[in-house]
Amino acid sequence: MTTIKDVAKQAGVSVATVSRVLNGNGYVHEDTRSKVEQSIRELNYTPNEVARSLYKRKSKLIGLLLPDIMNPYFPQLARGVEDEMQENDYRLIFGNSDEKKQKEMEYIQTFVQNNVVGVISSTNDPEADMYTGLNIPVVFLDRTSNDRPSVFADGREGGRIAAQEMMLRGSKEITVMQGPADVRPALERFEGAVEVLEERGAAYQVLKTTSFSLTDAEGFAYELFRQYPDTDGVIASNDIVASAVLKEAHRLEKRVPEDVQIIGFDDILLSSLLAPSLSTIHQPAYEMGRAAARLLIELIEGQHIERSSIEFPVEFMERQTTRKVES
Amino acid sequence: MTTIKDVAKQAGVSVATVSRVLNGNGYVHEDTRSKVEQSIRELNYTPNEVARSLYKRKSKLIGLLLPDIMNPYFPQLARGVEDEMQENDYRLIFGNSDEKKQKEMEYIQTFVQNNVVGVISSTNDPEADMYTGLNIPVVFLDRTSNDRPSVFADGREGGRIAAQEMMLRGSKEITVMQGPADVRPALERFEGAVEVLEERGAAYQVLKTTSFSLTDAEGFAYELFRQYPDTDGVIASNDIVASAVLKEAHRLEKRVPEDVQIIGFDDILLSSLLAPSLSTIHQPAYEMGRAAARLLIELIEGQHIERSSIEFPVEFMERQTTRKVES
Repeated sequence: MTTIKDVAKQAGVSVATVSRVLNGNGYVHEDTRSKVEQSIRELNYTPNEVARSLYKRKSKLIGLLLPDIMNPYFPQLARGVEDEMQENDYRLIFGNSDEKKQKEMEYIQTFVQNNVVGVISSTNDPEADMYTGLNIPVVFLDRTSNDRPSVFADGREGGRIAAQEMMLRGSKEITVMQGPADVRPALERFEGAVEVLEERGAAYQVLKTTSFSLTDAEGFAYELFRQYPDTDGVIASNDIVASAVLKEAHRLEKRVPEDVQIIGFDDILLSSLLAPSLSTIHQPAYEMGRAAARLLIELIEGQHIERSSIEFPVEFMERQTTRKVES
Repeated sequence: MTTIKDVAKQAGVSVATVSRVLNGNGYVHEDTRSKVEQSIRELNYTPNEVARSLYKRKSKLIGLLLPDIMNPYFPQLARGVEDEMQENDYRLIFGNSDEKKQKEMEYIQTFVQNNVVGVISSTNDPEADMYTGLNIPVVFLDRTSNDRPSVFADGREGGRIAAQEMMLRGSKEITVMQGPADVRPALERFEGAVEVLEERGAAYQVLKTTSFSLTDAEGFAYELFRQYPDTDGVIASNDIVASAVLKEAHRLEKRVPEDVQIIGFDDILLSSLLAPSLSTIHQPAYEMGRAAARLLIELIEGQHIERSSIEFPVEFMERQTTRKVES
């Protein structure tokens, strides 16, 4: 059977050069290319299945930057982005920023080094040099930007809904858990909840938290009931934190939702599996990922863009950690 | 301020060419490169922060193929791989196979097209042409291979432990849920459990399931208690399925663990947050991801490899869905 080595030998070039011709990427001089193609024909060389397809087309790369794939909310975004990209023959280079600027910058740099044709980023700072200085399209995902393409959910309205539902269902001493102050979506949902509570003159207190990790969440939940033992309604900064609050309430033998109501944020898989299942604010993460990918593809391919800022509505998922009301 | 356009104009080349010189990638003729570099010096051009670092180095790409990032077990693997790669200045191209051969092949092809220097794959078929035909290093992750580099957990032993613990804690009518037959780790853990039950002459039945998705899991859980209403011990194929079984047991007003014990597999975040929290077989997913990345880097860099097949031990996490025994 003819191998790639035979082709290289006959054409008088290296195997790497033949490979570059087959791949259709990397620089090969036109004369060299002709010689290689002639040898392929003369020797009747059939590249194997992989090589054959390489001969055809090369998919383009885009860079996807998320805070942390271990937080169950982000794999839903990532999967949405990837499915849309895969169907359109783009591939993803992927990185976690941990909401750290240095790590974020390193990833953006290496995306560019690897010739991505576009970037999707969940950043807290869309105005940073590393984005404004890029000469390829960028879409911000799960993060708003004033004037640049972005796909996000209406976090402020989510916070407002959580506070409204909490009051409607009878909580009088509400605790709002404020997520990390430098994470924009966390801040927006917090501000939305506080807006409603202020408007209605409700009694409430704020517990500041600094992360979304489960390990930390258990500490926050402990602190919550230690500082505010009489709270009868908790608006958590996300579902992970809410589930830690639920667990701590169990430990303290508080009945949920009779003694204390809990509302989360995100609607991750976990939420419907908890007992009692978690009432929360649903964000359509998978669809948001798909929309961001579609928008980026449109920008890359220079298509007419209808809207370059896409806001998804959120909705209250009534489950078992909130009390029922007459409809 | 001097811009990249000024440099291009003075050197008489395109902006793309200047960019290629700055990036240090893509083909640029040596004479052209000199002209561009001279113009950069003459105009005292300072590339912005991003461009400056591009000037320095280019990180290499590796391809990571996982079944489905939405299954919470896989983000742990992915994060382990990425952290190790990031620290060693490699970057990931990422794809989900959905355990489908066609999708898997397309990703492997595009990894190669994009010049990855190595591949990490959770495949069910390490002997497939698409792997044996690759001339770059491949490490199989979460999947065993007889003679090729791989990192995996001892699933068979995990199945054995689950059956032993179930019997030790008094279950007499055990149901083993068999995961998708074409997914190797699922088959191994199933076989391990059945081995022990057979060795000890225990009464058991098997419920075949075809996926790990939550939507399907709820159907399997319903079917389980419909077919085997008297089962008093369920060995689930993973934690997602186990949590659906727990939910269905609640719905049927069975007490867990008094009436029925449940043991999962994986030890995802969810497991410790359920109420009662889920007893399960722990796989060190994050560490496995890191180990696979380290092994791949060693292979790429031609270092001496101590072991090219790394098996991680599993362990029983005793929580609240199994009964206590005297120690």
